Amino acid sequence: MKNYIKYVVRIFFALFFPLIVSAQEYPSLLITKANLPALREGVKEFPLLESSFLDIQRSVDAELVHKLIVPTPKDAGGGYTHELHKKNYQLLLNSAICFQITQDVQYFDLSKSILIAYANKYQSWPEHPKRKENHPSGRIFWQNLNDCVWLVNAIQAYDLIVSELSSQEREIIEKDLFIPMGEYLMITHKAVFDKIHNHGTWSIAAVGITGLVLNKPEWVNKSLYGSALDKQTGFLKQLDELFSPDGYYAEGPYYQRYALSPFILFAKALHNHKPELHIFEYRNRLLAKAIETVFQTSYTNGLLFPLNDAIKDKSIKSNELVLSNNIAYSDIDTNPTLLGIAKKQNNVTISDAGLKVARDIFLGKSKEFDYKTILIRDGKDGKKGGIGIIRSGDEDTQQTLVLKNTTHGMGHGHFDRLNFLLYDNGFEVFPDYGAARFLNIESKSGGHYLKENNTWAKQSIAHNTIVINEASQFQGNVAKAEQASPTHITLYDHDTLKYVIASDSHSYPQIKISRALVTIQINEFKKPLIVDVSYIYSGKALKTVDLPYYYIGQVVDQSKKNVEANTSLHSFGEKNGYEHLWLNSTYPLQPHGDYITLLSNYKFYKVHFASESPNNTLNHVLLGANDPELNLLPTRGIVLRQENLHEAIFAQLIETYGDINPTDETISDANPIVKNFKITPKEKNNVNISFEAGENVFQLQTDLTNNIISNIQIEQL
Amino acid sequence: MKNYIKYVVRIFFALFFPLIVSAQEYPSLLITKANLPALREGVKEFPLLESSFLDIQRSVDAELVHKLIVPTPKDAGGGYTHELHKKNYQLLLNSAICFQITQDVQYFDLSKSILIAYANKYQSWPEHPKRKENHPSGRIFWQNLNDCVWLVNAIQAYDLIVSELSSQEREIIEKDLFIPMGEYLMITHKAVFDKIHNHGTWSIAAVGITGLVLNKPEWVNKSLYGSALDKQTGFLKQLDELFSPDGYYAEGPYYQRYALSPFILFAKALHNHKPELHIFEYRNRLLAKAIETVFQTSYTNGLLFPLNDAIKDKSIKSNELVLSNNIAYSDIDTNPTLLGIAKKQNNVTISDAGLKVARDIFLGKSKEFDYKTILIRDGKDGKKGGIGIIRSGDEDTQQTLVLKNTTHGMGHGHFDRLNFLLYDNGFEVFPDYGAARFLNIESKSGGHYLKENNTWAKQSIAHNTIVINEASQFQGNVAKAEQASPTHITLYDHDTLKYVIASDSHSYPQIKISRALVTIQINEFKKPLIVDVSYIYSGKALKTVDLPYYYIGQVVDQSKKNVEANTSLHSFGEKNGYEHLWLNSTYPLQPHGDYITLLSNYKFYKVHFASESPNNTLNHVLLGANDPELNLLPTRGIVLRQENLHEAIFAQLIETYGDINPTDETISDANPIVKNFKITPKEKNNVNISFEAGENVFQLQTDLTNNIISNIQIEQL
Repeated sequence: MKNYIKYVVRIFFALFFPLIVSAQEYPSLLITKANLPALREGVKEFPLLESSFLDIQRSVDAELVHKLIVPTPKDAGGGYTHELHKKNYQLLLNSAICFQITQDVQYFDLSKSILIAYANKYQSWPEHPKRKENHPSGRIFWQNLNDCVWLVNAIQAYDLIVSELSSQEREIIEKDLFIPMGEYLMITHKAVFDKIHNHGTWSIAAVGITGLVLNKPEWVNKSLYGSALDKQTGFLKQLDELFSPDGYYAEGPYYQRYALSPFILFAKALHNHKPELHIFEYRNRLLAKAIETVFQTSYTNGLLFPLNDAIKDKSIKSNELVLSNNIAYSDIDTNPTLLGIAKKQNNVTISDAGLKVARDIFLGKSKEFDYKTILIRDGKDGKKGGIGIIRSGDEDTQQTLVLKNTTHGMGHGHFDRLNFLLYDNGFEVFPDYGAARFLNIESKSGGHYLKENNTWAKQSIAHNTIVINEASQFQGNVAKAEQASPTHITLYDHDTLKYVIASDSHSYPQIKISRALVTIQINEFKKPLIVDVSYIYSGKALKTVDLPYYYIGQVVDQSKKNVEANTSLHSFGEKNGYEHLWLNSTYPLQPHGDYITLLSNYKFYKVHFASESPNNTLNHVLLGANDPELNLLPTRGIVLRQENLHEAIFAQLIETYGDINPTDETISDANPIVKNFKITPKEKNNVNISFEAGENVFQLQTDLTNNIISNIQIEQL
Repeated sequence: MKNYIKYVVRIFFALFFPLIVSAQEYPSLLITKANLPALREGVKEFPLLESSFLDIQRSVDAELVHKLIVPTPKDAGGGYTHELHKKNYQLLLNSAICFQITQDVQYFDLSKSILIAYANKYQSWPEHPKRKENHPSGRIFWQNLNDCVWLVNAIQAYDLIVSELSSQEREIIEKDLFIPMGEYLMITHKAVFDKIHNHGTWSIAAVGITGLVLNKPEWVNKSLYGSALDKQTGFLKQLDELFSPDGYYAEGPYYQRYALSPFILFAKALHNHKPELHIFEYRNRLLAKAIETVFQTSYTNGLLFPLNDAIKDKSIKSNELVLSNNIAYSDIDTNPTLLGIAKKQNNVTISDAGLKVARDIFLGKSKEFDYKTILIRDGKDGKKGGIGIIRSGDEDTQQTLVLKNTTHGMGHGHFDRLNFLLYDNGFEVFPDYGAARFLNIESKSGGHYLKENNTWAKQSIAHNTIVINEASQFQGNVAKAEQASPTHITLYDHDTLKYVIASDSHSYPQIKISRALVTIQINEFKKPLIVDVSYIYSGKALKTVDLPYYYIGQVVDQSKKNVEANTSLHSFGEKNGYEHLWLNSTYPLQPHGDYITLLSNYKFYKVHFASESPNNTLNHVLLGANDPELNLLPTRGIVLRQENLHEAIFAQLIETYGDINPTDETISDANPIVKNFKITPKEKNNVNISFEAGENVFQLQTDLTNNIISNIQIEQL
């Protein structure tokens, strides 16, 4: 009976909301009618566009032989119905693209039949049976988010084929699918629609793009200005709130990549339909910055820095970033270094923008992407910390340091302020663990975040950062971490000397932690030397201060000889992530003179240690304790520990050398050069660190005004 | 005084051994005078020859600016003087090649100056100060072997430039360098020269090639027939003894690659200078077989199977294999699939042979290398076991199984009869550890084999093979292992069914071990199913029978839920390699129904277990115990253990599935199909294994006549 009423109401509505006004031209989104002839030609003419199209066509052709299945939604993420509905929307859109490029009616028929099939069933589906408590549900998928993604794809497909549909077919598809779906997202799940959050962006993009295509101004306006039309929510507010002025998205690069999609797709649709909005100019070309920033937060091998929750194999090749890059080049700024990214991506979207990118690459306009030494500020005002990135060298051998001191990043944030990453020579050397998750692997917690994401990956000890008293920053409390912004981060970039300094006074009560990463290019060295100094100042006595370095590769040398390894392994601690580390061996470190040397991807990394503390140990650890399900990836690290003090200085110098050729079995440049890396006793407000490199003595003066590292000076003595 | 007499003797000799007869044409080895014009043209014309030459020229040009240093020999392998002398002979030869290609006199001058510098110093150098006890010394290097390699390179350089040298320069170089060096190798270290061993090959190649170039027939004859000229030693005897009729070299692929060099170089020199020997036809084209075999013992990613002592990153790109492949194609058999290898190598030697290869690739004659399902027999008569290799699928996704049951392989052999390796999808899945060695890394035991090479890498438990009573095969005794050949190995290759069966009755007293690896291609599966059956029969009660599978990747599922992991780790055993394994957890296995699923390089590998034993456990292990120096690479494995029995059957079925796309974050083909993998109770002389795959039931009948797996039959029920 209820359903019957709903039906009547819907019919009634339909009378007032006209179907597509045929004056509007289709397609009108990523592909526009005016560009179709050029696009069809371009697919034949420009290799990158051709190969990208053929990939899509092949994927569609492989499905043409199969019977379409539109199952009743049943399974959670990674499960059968979930994967099938995901596949269906991809097929729907890809087939529509194939139709427009080839004008082959079989593709049209496929896309149409998918839309009709969903239109026939959609309204019979209730909220998803596997929805999670406190998570807004979808009807096709267990999460509202996935339904939004479904609609964003489906409306693009519709836009591509609508001009060939009969008015009856349009009516079925619009009234039985798009309109109820849009209302479901906008009304039933109004809270999501109005949320300043990535999930909200997907919701308004889905409704907004659908509104543009179906010519429903109310939907468009609510998407732009919030369901109350008061501009307190909606697309523009999201652009204001979710990104920093440098285009950084607080959840980190992995989610920034994902979050960009609905922004770019909706913005491009607005750009076509409502050019008067000048959406790409909004907030000082914010979207262009956001796109550049995600590439700046990747290493030259294409992988995104795995900060916060991140699947580590996510690269700039992801579809979202192909799209973003194409739109940035085509619609915002024809910067030829973006073509360098497109060449690495080796893929373009089949779209007006992809055509332009592929054509300009074909015309030889491409330049290498400009990976920068850069400070990327966080916070909507740019005053809430940021990420410092120091780069040196050519793309294929680049040394890249990352110092993270951002806001927490909401539910996907890690307790990792002052976290340090090192990349070199094409690979990670001191990595971040990323998220503890086997994405899409159902047998591993259904493909969701593992419990070890909380017990290990988010904890401070899982990162190359300072950990005090074996507790995580902010006691592992997200709300507390969100409240307190990082204290400061600055970057200096001048010729042979570059550094980033950051501090935080909130992550541990009454304690200031600060860290400087310095690179010094000295003639004798192929690679800059890295000096890593941390200073911890406390109003109260500290039991332990730990600084881990997790590493890729193998320890091939250490100053301490005849290390006694433990004959049985116990966990390094009891909680806060320490329970997941096996302690292999422990030995005392002298204030200076100690080192370890790593062999990592055919290069040596010698890490010299200096401190002022007499109670200093090096602890060899191995990840994997308290892990009965073998959820954790075996990872080795050293944890530098200082005990029983009010202030602590950790100073490390990392020198990179060695050219090992495994094919020829040769080695050259096999010897380190740095000697006598040490701290001279701390004076008031500063600490001096000195070392010899070849014939020269260098001194690094660290200003500790206000009990944080506030400045660095280096001189050659 | 002694030196003075030596000097007089040498002068005297020189009168009787004339300097190069000028009628002989130079160059005469890899590059011949007749081919020089074509070679110089080819470097401009054929891209692969050009790029290969430019690599060499660049390396030489980089050294032109440096002062030549010829230090007094002092350091062991990996040390300063060692690496410098190694670099010098490479530079010497490469510069001579550059001279012949470019006719630029600066290259001639460099090669000449290196030869003169060594001629001026060589005789003042005594036996090397760092020589090892019981290892024959060199004078330039700590090992005799390296001096031989030095001479093999230097004589080729001399052959390239001699026609431009003055007679005085020739006299200095021949009398003060090549003749004393040849005598040192042939006379002072006669034992090496006459040894049927890779070191002997290098010695006779050095002396033999030098004899050909300097026109010293006695040197050539002794190299061919042994220093007693009785054919009990020398090159031909080495060809008879060191390879099987299939061209397999007992030390395994890594050393086969290395051992090939002197064979190929000397054979090519003989081919040019003494064509009447028909050396490449010798023993039914043995050298061509040896070259093909080394490629057959590699995976499609180019890496050699790391059997026995092997550095794991050694690939078919190694210089020795570029040379071997070029000569095989040019001088033995113009098989276009060798061009497929050359394309993968992306390199040719700058030589007559390299010209032919580069030209024919340029002319489009290349075909993909024919990776075969093949039995490679071991033993000079081909009756001492061998290696069975089963391959399926295209190069980039190929499934490759390896079953090793060869002779021991002398000092570099591992106690690994019935060892199994699996490669798939471009990577290792169940790997071999290879050697425990950091080649050229001085801080790691001077770059030599680590002590863990004996305590771990050679031990049976380090391999995917049967281990009884926690002891290695042959009690880890090389002499015993050398005495006893493997019992048998056979290979069957028919359409959708392929298998290799092998057995050994010597590695444990009174015990027969046998193993069958079977692949079955069933329509529903993209990849063949693998069945791995081992049968152990003993005359006495066995305490433990272990079968490890070391794996790459992560366990993502196992039948046993709520596994209790050990809260502290202890080693799995006390000796024979067991002391290096941490035991993570142990749980009982049922006779059937248990499994683990691995995720390895974006594919799933589900391993189903079946046995007859009631006392069967699965043990999760991790390499790294008793390893204070962190010499061992973290490696995970499972060890299947059966206890207290007279006979044991281990049956595993491995199914491969899953297409995980990390860029798109999609997964398809995510579900396994095989069910009810089990052993039906053993009847007299045979054991039946059955399983369901989709709709079908398969039965594998294993014939155990003579208490070894002697035959396999499979039927679909």
